[in-house]
Amino acid sequence: MKTQSILLKERPKKTPQTSNFEFKEEEVKSPKENEVLLKTIYVSVDPYLRGRMRDEESYIEPFQIGKPITSAIIAKVEKSECENLKEGDYVLGHLAWKEYQIAKGENLQKVDSNQAKLSAYLGILGMTGLTAYFGLTDIGQPKEGETVLVSGAAGSVGSAVGQIAKIYGCKTIGIAGSDEKIKLIKEKFNYDEGINYKTTENMKEAISKAASNGVDVYFDNVGGKILDATLQNINRNGRVINCGAISQYNKEETVTGPRVEGILIKKSVKMQGFTVRNDYKENFAEGTKQLAKWLQEGKLKYEETVREGFENIPQAFIDLFSGENKGKMVVKVADE
Amino acid sequence: MKTQSILLKERPKKTPQTSNFEFKEEEVKSPKENEVLLKTIYVSVDPYLRGRMRDEESYIEPFQIGKPITSAIIAKVEKSECENLKEGDYVLGHLAWKEYQIAKGENLQKVDSNQAKLSAYLGILGMTGLTAYFGLTDIGQPKEGETVLVSGAAGSVGSAVGQIAKIYGCKTIGIAGSDEKIKLIKEKFNYDEGINYKTTENMKEAISKAASNGVDVYFDNVGGKILDATLQNINRNGRVINCGAISQYNKEETVTGPRVEGILIKKSVKMQGFTVRNDYKENFAEGTKQLAKWLQEGKLKYEETVREGFENIPQAFIDLFSGENKGKMVVKVADE
Repeated sequence: MKTQSILLKERPKKTPQTSNFEFKEEEVKSPKENEVLLKTIYVSVDPYLRGRMRDEESYIEPFQIGKPITSAIIAKVEKSECENLKEGDYVLGHLAWKEYQIAKGENLQKVDSNQAKLSAYLGILGMTGLTAYFGLTDIGQPKEGETVLVSGAAGSVGSAVGQIAKIYGCKTIGIAGSDEKIKLIKEKFNYDEGINYKTTENMKEAISKAASNGVDVYFDNVGGKILDATLQNINRNGRVINCGAISQYNKEETVTGPRVEGILIKKSVKMQGFTVRNDYKENFAEGTKQLAKWLQEGKLKYEETVREGFENIPQAFIDLFSGENKGKMVVKVADE
Repeated sequence: MKTQSILLKERPKKTPQTSNFEFKEEEVKSPKENEVLLKTIYVSVDPYLRGRMRDEESYIEPFQIGKPITSAIIAKVEKSECENLKEGDYVLGHLAWKEYQIAKGENLQKVDSNQAKLSAYLGILGMTGLTAYFGLTDIGQPKEGETVLVSGAAGSVGSAVGQIAKIYGCKTIGIAGSDEKIKLIKEKFNYDEGINYKTTENMKEAISKAASNGVDVYFDNVGGKILDATLQNINRNGRVINCGAISQYNKEETVTGPRVEGILIKKSVKMQGFTVRNDYKENFAEGTKQLAKWLQEGKLKYEETVREGFENIPQAFIDLFSGENKGKMVVKVADE
């Protein structure tokens, strides 16, 4: 049988373009021992994939030109030569952007479509939920009554961070890029305050006004000038969780900004970067269990933006950088 | 009786000048209940005092114009109205730059001139030793076999950091500003490698060469370009201890440099600032005990630069910024 596959045609210069990707028809073989034939149902598109399109050292290997892009994918088992998987099972795996593919069973995790919606395993019960959970609780160490500021607050990670911070008894302030998103984070994700950075001239003042007791914990999904403005409002012993720097991803040159070491010393502040895959892999089961519990208790809500159609995967990925998604962006490739 | 006192005359613009200070003769009263009359023996001059001469929010109150400068001082009790202190006792206190002064007994700590040289209580057994100890061990968490890089390695803090890192089984690389200092840190302070930053054109390459396995822990006393060069050599899960930013202290404008958030995320790096007075006060007794033990065992050596004469305190302070001291800089004001 044949499948469509999406390859990296050339490395994006700044913001990715559809012309950076190439569609190619390939032959799909039959599964051998311990392998399965998979049909792709949901594809996760994530900002971090931009880093893998660059040819430089990162926390994860770069994508190769002429090879398929890979990301987290929910797929259905069509044929199985694996003991533990049978036809009709749903699995989560780090898989190629293909409609059909062969995969080794050992690299797949079975997911239960009765416990939560299948796409949740790409978001709140997957990498984005775990990123919010471990970044906030382990690096941020939020204490009751503290103020937690979150950038990218309407995104999949940021919306979970705000809700977890509320569970911990913190005051939460979210930064996002539209009035619609501000409304969403306050109404759905429990944020106490919201700042639309696109209509705010002086972020330092806006943060100071919203965080009347200063900022104790900053969960940073964007980097750049919002980070600078936050550091001007950080409290003694403040903690900055460097989770993403989406404002920097599409820039090729070295970006400069105000030096941070002075403020880190003056206020005894910690800034710590992480990637959940590398730093918390051994704690995933514990994290997923806690997130599923909060989800079932109704303490954790999530938003997702679902695009449709295999051919629209590259555009969905590109749209992440103009902030068109609310919550986790996934592409539905086939019916369940 | 009369005493000379050194006041802040005006806030330094960039590098401090002797003209920023004013000498004034004052009357010294007699000690009241719970007070002592003190004669200053040793005065500690420290880079962090530069920050207090600025009129801005910091981890410690700014000095006031027309008021005496204060710092850590070893003094001798001349007259006592305190139960726990008697004439002839030596004490450590945060005191004014005066030859004689009245102080409350409760703010003074008795020191034993038989256990160590009196001036050691301003250095290796005082704030500088404690800064090295808590910064390296608590924030840096050095593990056997790791590589620890230290800037200001010939300074009072840096020389102790290198030796403590060796006690923990690490490879140590010190950065300092003269060949003489490099010789000193390798011969006396156990550093495995030394880099003279003043004669090195490409610090990134020099660090890469000296730290062939990359840098796991960077104890930063200087900030600025050496920090930038280190971050280009940092290992996954590296830790940067932001202890000082002497390269930035004399600059009034906002200093810019390469943004750090990208590298922190890529390599899961932590940068954490601290001041030992604020963050480890409750652990001082434990720290001093450990340092005194190492000192007695001969595992910890220290260097000090002793200037003589009360009138030379401002110049001794100023000379810190051109790196004229080896180890802790103290001024001997009177004989023991």
